[in-house]
Amino acid sequence: MRPLDQQALADALVLHARLTKPAGSLGRLEALGVRLAGISGECPPPVPSPAAVAVFAGDHGVVAQGVTPWPQEVTGQMVANFMAGGAAINVLARQSGSRLVVVDVGVANVPGRWAERIESTGPAGPTDRIGPTRSSPRLLHRRVRAGTADLSTGPAMTEDEALAALDVGCDVAGELVAAGARCLLTGEMGIGNTTPSAALIAALTGRAASEVTGRGTGIGDTMLLRKSEVIHAALTLHADALAAGPLATLAAIGGLEIAALAGFIVGGAAAGVPVLVDGVVADAALLVAAALVPGVEDRCIAGHRSPEPGATAALAHLGMEPLLDLGLRLGEGSGACLALPLVEAAARILAEMATFDSAGVTAKPA
Amino acid sequence: MRPLDQQALADALVLHARLTKPAGSLGRLEALGVRLAGISGECPPPVPSPAAVAVFAGDHGVVAQGVTPWPQEVTGQMVANFMAGGAAINVLARQSGSRLVVVDVGVANVPGRWAERIESTGPAGPTDRIGPTRSSPRLLHRRVRAGTADLSTGPAMTEDEALAALDVGCDVAGELVAAGARCLLTGEMGIGNTTPSAALIAALTGRAASEVTGRGTGIGDTMLLRKSEVIHAALTLHADALAAGPLATLAAIGGLEIAALAGFIVGGAAAGVPVLVDGVVADAALLVAAALVPGVEDRCIAGHRSPEPGATAALAHLGMEPLLDLGLRLGEGSGACLALPLVEAAARILAEMATFDSAGVTAKPA
Repeated sequence: MRPLDQQALADALVLHARLTKPAGSLGRLEALGVRLAGISGECPPPVPSPAAVAVFAGDHGVVAQGVTPWPQEVTGQMVANFMAGGAAINVLARQSGSRLVVVDVGVANVPGRWAERIESTGPAGPTDRIGPTRSSPRLLHRRVRAGTADLSTGPAMTEDEALAALDVGCDVAGELVAAGARCLLTGEMGIGNTTPSAALIAALTGRAASEVTGRGTGIGDTMLLRKSEVIHAALTLHADALAAGPLATLAAIGGLEIAALAGFIVGGAAAGVPVLVDGVVADAALLVAAALVPGVEDRCIAGHRSPEPGATAALAHLGMEPLLDLGLRLGEGSGACLALPLVEAAARILAEMATFDSAGVTAKPA
Repeated sequence: MRPLDQQALADALVLHARLTKPAGSLGRLEALGVRLAGISGECPPPVPSPAAVAVFAGDHGVVAQGVTPWPQEVTGQMVANFMAGGAAINVLARQSGSRLVVVDVGVANVPGRWAERIESTGPAGPTDRIGPTRSSPRLLHRRVRAGTADLSTGPAMTEDEALAALDVGCDVAGELVAAGARCLLTGEMGIGNTTPSAALIAALTGRAASEVTGRGTGIGDTMLLRKSEVIHAALTLHADALAAGPLATLAAIGGLEIAALAGFIVGGAAAGVPVLVDGVVADAALLVAAALVPGVEDRCIAGHRSPEPGATAALAHLGMEPLLDLGLRLGEGSGACLALPLVEAAARILAEMATFDSAGVTAKPA
């Protein structure tokens, strides 16, 4: 990944000092604006609007180990809910004026009407294209396989499957930017997916399973202990894969939507737009992306600090500080969507504020 | 102040449990939505849009004591900048679709062209009304006096002047709600105004001056020590006023824009709309408002945690936790404006999300 544009970074720092406000008084919004200049190579940076949220959906064989109280069919049911417009991410994407696409990269059980639709249009038929319309969610059928295998008993997927899922994410990012998106937001849905996320975070940061395993959407002490033990055992089982590098690690203990998210992050960064990262599952994907393509993290912005301990471990490993800390543990892209107005504001401040000179305001004596 | 609507609060809690998300997974957004229901008396609560930001501007005689490096004329210059659309609050209000009004409640030095405008239209001429147009900022001439006296040598203002400024704020709140605002955001501009803010916070929370005095928009160690000493001396000088109650305290050590903000908070709360509170100056005003009208704080939402130590002291005293913590130390209403999309999202989630029943999603087993 090419480094951030040094000239644009320097120009944005100089411009910030000339705007009609005490130096540094916009706090983290200033550093964020400078970062946006570096990502785009322009000062002031373009306003990152419209944005697009991609929700990658996949299932996880490890749910057989009792790591979540939710039945696996909820993944497909929630995809149907996304398409009907009733989920939290629908509300938040609409409010922010962001386009929403849902990508089936590995759902195990699809509800009846949805299966019929797949049947009638084919896996990559004409309705599977990202078009110019932004008003309603679009479902992309890019399924690599119908859910991963149980990572506690063998590899979650093959390396070829992991590569295919990475490609799905990278392609979706490119298609969204080609269709006009100026900022990409990571979203996901997958019952059980905080388990492979914690496993990946442990493997890629060197932490113990017990340090990075959390309660996901809300499990009790017994299930939490079970989840941590399952992750610890998987890290031992797959020690060879973990030593072989990030792709082998992703295949052994990852997930299809996590792999797609990693590809999406790389694709967005390569396309020159900022990628706004959601909660713990996206943080795990970002760790994978940064291991595969060092420097990609410079083009990402952490939207929200998930209460999952793994989220803080992953972000600390990457030296990133999220914009929001509201105790969200939903995923779907909700934390990224809520942080989007802050990113937009950081760009608009640089583009629209007056300077001390132009406004005739007396600057503070040095 | 009437208490929050208990039925609406209870209804919102029940509704949240039925929405298609794990219980509590939207974190602080859920409590915020419940609060909005209690404020409005409706479940789901109305979307708090459009919002209006009122920036109250005033000057401070205490600047004679060397508590800020900025010359006093900057207050008037920044008001002119607000009217020209070039300040940070202009950018943020435009982005959020919020109306912006600027209220001269006590500016000492007005720039030439502005003085001419006051001359030609009179202090409360036909242009001094809040009309239906929301596209450009409007300047309201509601000056109580041309800046406060030096609070370190005598009372900042008389109690009658403090009451007049409270009335200005209360009236502006009522006028904005009458003109269609569904959420009010506090803003202010006044060179030196973190000094009376810290003094009020010390007086109303019982903290020492040294505990609540901060660097404002950015002062060095020597000036910080001086500022703390000036505040400490003022608290001693005005001990009788401080013992006499919140109005006497406000008059002795407050500011015109701080008094107007306190009135604005009370007026917004009385009108039944949520009041989104900005940084340390607004926090001081909120303490005054809550001391004058207990319960008003239940109808307020803290937008941003100012790095000023007094802000944390004031919010802790009121049991409030701000939504954002981005290191902003600008004021103007910037932190409130940036938090507005979160408040809007909290309301929209309750109004627009599907329930488990309606979406056909399996709820988690109990």
